[in-house]
Amino acid sequence: MRYAILGTGVVGRTVAARLDSLGHEVVIGTRDPGTTLARAEYAAWQEAHPRVSLADFPEAARQGDTLVNATGGKVSVAALTEADAAHLDGKILIDIANPLDFSKGFPPSLDPVDTDSLGELIQRTFPQLRVVKTLNTMNCEIMVDPARVKGEHTVFLSGEDADAKKAVHGLLSSFGWPDRSILDLGGIETARGTEMLLPIWLRLMGALGHSEFNFHIQGA
Amino acid sequence: MRYAILGTGVVGRTVAARLDSLGHEVVIGTRDPGTTLARAEYAAWQEAHPRVSLADFPEAARQGDTLVNATGGKVSVAALTEADAAHLDGKILIDIANPLDFSKGFPPSLDPVDTDSLGELIQRTFPQLRVVKTLNTMNCEIMVDPARVKGEHTVFLSGEDADAKKAVHGLLSSFGWPDRSILDLGGIETARGTEMLLPIWLRLMGALGHSEFNFHIQGA
Repeated sequence: MRYAILGTGVVGRTVAARLDSLGHEVVIGTRDPGTTLARAEYAAWQEAHPRVSLADFPEAARQGDTLVNATGGKVSVAALTEADAAHLDGKILIDIANPLDFSKGFPPSLDPVDTDSLGELIQRTFPQLRVVKTLNTMNCEIMVDPARVKGEHTVFLSGEDADAKKAVHGLLSSFGWPDRSILDLGGIETARGTEMLLPIWLRLMGALGHSEFNFHIQGA
Repeated sequence: MRYAILGTGVVGRTVAARLDSLGHEVVIGTRDPGTTLARAEYAAWQEAHPRVSLADFPEAARQGDTLVNATGGKVSVAALTEADAAHLDGKILIDIANPLDFSKGFPPSLDPVDTDSLGELIQRTFPQLRVVKTLNTMNCEIMVDPARVKGEHTVFLSGEDADAKKAVHGLLSSFGWPDRSILDLGGIETARGTEMLLPIWLRLMGALGHSEFNFHIQGA
């Protein structure tokens, strides 16, 4: 399977490295590869992960069988628009982003929120994609290595396409998520619920002083 | 300790019955006691709980040493305004309500949300109260009997007044909450986080087909 990860931040790189270590082909998509490679942090990471390639959004989307949205939530639609509709048709998009809005300071608010969500916005804007919202409710190290948190904890799935959710479930299994920890909430509308976990996630990080925790639904 | 529970719905009655069973004096506050007693459901409950009294909002607030806000979130400020500022001075208000807005159908949205919360709105509107937001993230049976859900699960505290949070912590202990399950998030601003759990709580109830679950913060 060839994965295209949209977004060059720590979340995208962490997922890319994990997919690479599992033997998948991985291309990371960015607006301008030259600018990305000029960032010392990215260049160092690229050197440590020579099998992962870097391309602009349309080329990355063209190459990927499955796409992962790891861009900032506020620019996700722009990135996918740039990726070119012809390269999205019928593909699964795993949306792990959150629409955090830092314009009013920290902690960020969400936009959209409550009566809409980023997951829905992407699905609505790109109906040719099969959007599955997942993994957006924890730090990226835990996404790809759930054993980092001791005890049972939960990852959520939201999406309209049952086959796409089944495929993403399989990918989560390969990351180490037990079946009993993968909770299908229903359609993409339920992404409102998981995105709205971010405000308490941020305040928990503040109260606990670390981000090595996750939500567990006890009694599910 | 004498508790005044504002609100005659199932949440208020469940908390009132538990406080009564623990030997506290309990008065339930409502807009018009005559109208409340004319409701067959309430009258039957009242007959089963003869030690719990019913009064209008100002009289209930006058009698209570500690207040519990179990009104609908959209009418909480109106109920407290009716309760009369003179009866609130210096008292702890345990806010277990959520600002659910059913005007757009089900599932409800929240108002206020994200950049404000009901907990903050009440604290801001009634600075003479010491507001502690808690228990609003689970069904009311679990609030007063956490052993209903097997395994570890979490109750959150938000509030500005350390002594008030300590007193509420003690009340939660008497309900059966172990110390390790009571998680102090910080100031009343953190109520934004717990109120924003409601959207996923409602969707979990839909996906699971029951409400006998609770959030647990694994790794806290």
